[in-house]
Amino acid sequence: MPRHPDNMPMDKENHRKCIYFFFKLVYMISKARIKFIKSLQLKKYRKQEQSFVVEGEKNVRELLDSDYVVTQVICTEDFKNTYYSKANKKIDWVLANDRELNSIGSFKTNQSALAVADMKTIRKPSPKSDEWVLVLDDIRDPGNLGTIIRTADWFGLTDIVVSAETTDVYNPKVLHASMGSFCRVNIYPTELSTYLSAVSGKVYGTYLKGEDIHSLIKPEPGHLVIGNESVGISAPLEKFITDKITIQKLGGAESLNAAMATGIILDNLIRLQK
Amino acid sequence: MPRHPDNMPMDKENHRKCIYFFFKLVYMISKARIKFIKSLQLKKYRKQEQSFVVEGEKNVRELLDSDYVVTQVICTEDFKNTYYSKANKKIDWVLANDRELNSIGSFKTNQSALAVADMKTIRKPSPKSDEWVLVLDDIRDPGNLGTIIRTADWFGLTDIVVSAETTDVYNPKVLHASMGSFCRVNIYPTELSTYLSAVSGKVYGTYLKGEDIHSLIKPEPGHLVIGNESVGISAPLEKFITDKITIQKLGGAESLNAAMATGIILDNLIRLQK
Repeated sequence: MPRHPDNMPMDKENHRKCIYFFFKLVYMISKARIKFIKSLQLKKYRKQEQSFVVEGEKNVRELLDSDYVVTQVICTEDFKNTYYSKANKKIDWVLANDRELNSIGSFKTNQSALAVADMKTIRKPSPKSDEWVLVLDDIRDPGNLGTIIRTADWFGLTDIVVSAETTDVYNPKVLHASMGSFCRVNIYPTELSTYLSAVSGKVYGTYLKGEDIHSLIKPEPGHLVIGNESVGISAPLEKFITDKITIQKLGGAESLNAAMATGIILDNLIRLQK
Repeated sequence: MPRHPDNMPMDKENHRKCIYFFFKLVYMISKARIKFIKSLQLKKYRKQEQSFVVEGEKNVRELLDSDYVVTQVICTEDFKNTYYSKANKKIDWVLANDRELNSIGSFKTNQSALAVADMKTIRKPSPKSDEWVLVLDDIRDPGNLGTIIRTADWFGLTDIVVSAETTDVYNPKVLHASMGSFCRVNIYPTELSTYLSAVSGKVYGTYLKGEDIHSLIKPEPGHLVIGNESVGISAPLEKFITDKITIQKLGGAESLNAAMATGIILDNLIRLQK
C-alpha cells in the first residue's frame, strides 16, 4: 500500500524547495520598506520624511561612525557581521543579497549595504569665522558638489554655505561622490545675499579675471565663494566679494571644472597660511 | 455630384500630414547611419572603424576647430547655420531634431550636435621631456580621465601617457568630461614599465606618505605618475619613481579624488617653476 504523501520521506527536490523558502523568509524585504527607501531618492519625500538614504560599503560605514541617527541598514550578512556589534542597538537590520541591494538603491552596483538615517540639525556658520568657510553659488552637478564636500573635508573645512539652487546635499549622487565626507562637513543652505551681507571679514571669489592665486601674499581666513559651473558667481553677489582671485590659465581649455577650481584654490589658501 | 477624392481641396488634416511627411524626409537619418553611430559607443567598434563620436555643442565646436578629420555632423539647423561655412567642405552634414539627437547619442540631453571623426596618429612623448608629462596608471573612471585631460590642458600640458588598463580616451563619458580638451592633448597608451624605464629625468609619483607638495623647492620638469583610484601607483612602477609626493591631509576624508589630486599637484609644480 502506498504511503500517504504527507508521510513520505522528503526527496531532494522538496528539500531544495524548503531551503529556498526558508532563505526567502530570512532575506525578504517588505514591499512597504522598498517603497519607502525608493521614495527617498526624491527630494520631496526626503524633506517630508526628514530622512535620506546612503549607499555603498564606504559611505554606510562612515555613516555608522558619525553622529547621524541611523534608523535602518539593509545589508549582506558579511557587512552585518563586521559592523553590527559596534553600531547603535536601535538600528533595524535587514539582510539582503546583491540583487536586492541593487534593485532598491539608485546605483547599478552596490554589493554590501544601504542605510536610512534621519537628517540632523544644521548649524549656521559664524559670519566672523576665523577658519575658511566655503560658499557655493548654485553648484548644480551632484558629482561636483560631492567632490567639493570631499575636498573641503580633506583640507579640514567644517562649514559649507550653499544657495537654495545648489543641488540637494542628500541627493544620492552627491553622497556617493562625497565618499563619506558629508558626515563631517556641516552644509548650510540659505539665501546668499543675506548671509554674505552679515559677513565681516574677507570674502574671496573666483573670477576669470581675478588676481592670480599664486601671487597672493597672506590671505586672512574668511569666506571663499565658488560660482556656478556655467555662469560663475551671480551678479548680485559681486558687491560682497572683497578679493577676486583666479587660477592662471596656461593652455587651451576654456575653463576648469568647478570642483577642481575649488580644490586648487583651497590648497593655495591653506599653503599660504602655513 | 461629389468631387473625386484626388481632386478634393486639401483640408487642414491633410495639410498637416503633408508638412509632417516633408519634415520627416528632410530630417530623416538612415537606419544604417544610426546603427553605425551607436556602434561607436563600444571600444571594439571604435577600434575597428578607427572612428569615434563626439557629442554636444561645445565638444563638436572644438572638434571642428581641431586637426581631427571630421567625417559627419548630425545637428540642428541652428548649429549648421553657425558652423557650416567655417568647416571642412568634405564633411557630411545631416539635420536632426532634439529628439533624434538624444536617441542617437549616449547622453540624455544633447540639444545641438553630434559628430563622427577619424582617430589620429598618436605621438610618443619624449622620455627626456623638458615639459611636464602626465602618466596615468590605470585611471578607471571616465569622468576622472576626462577631468584630468581638461585640467592638463588648462595648465598647458600637451602629453599624457596612459596604461593599457586606463579607460579608453574615446569613451563618450571621457570626451564629455574633457570639455573639448581631448582635441589639444596627445594621449599615448602604452606599457608603463617599458615606457618609464626609458625615462631619464625626474619621475614624481603620488603616494599617501610622500613629501608634502608644499615643501618642494624647485622641481625639474619631468614625468608625474598618478595612481589608480583605489590602489594608487602599482607596485612594479615604484622603482621608477624618483620623488614620492603627497598633498597633506588636514581633515577627515580618507583620500582625494584622483582627478582632484592631479590638478592640485600640477598647480603646485607649475607654481614652483614660476
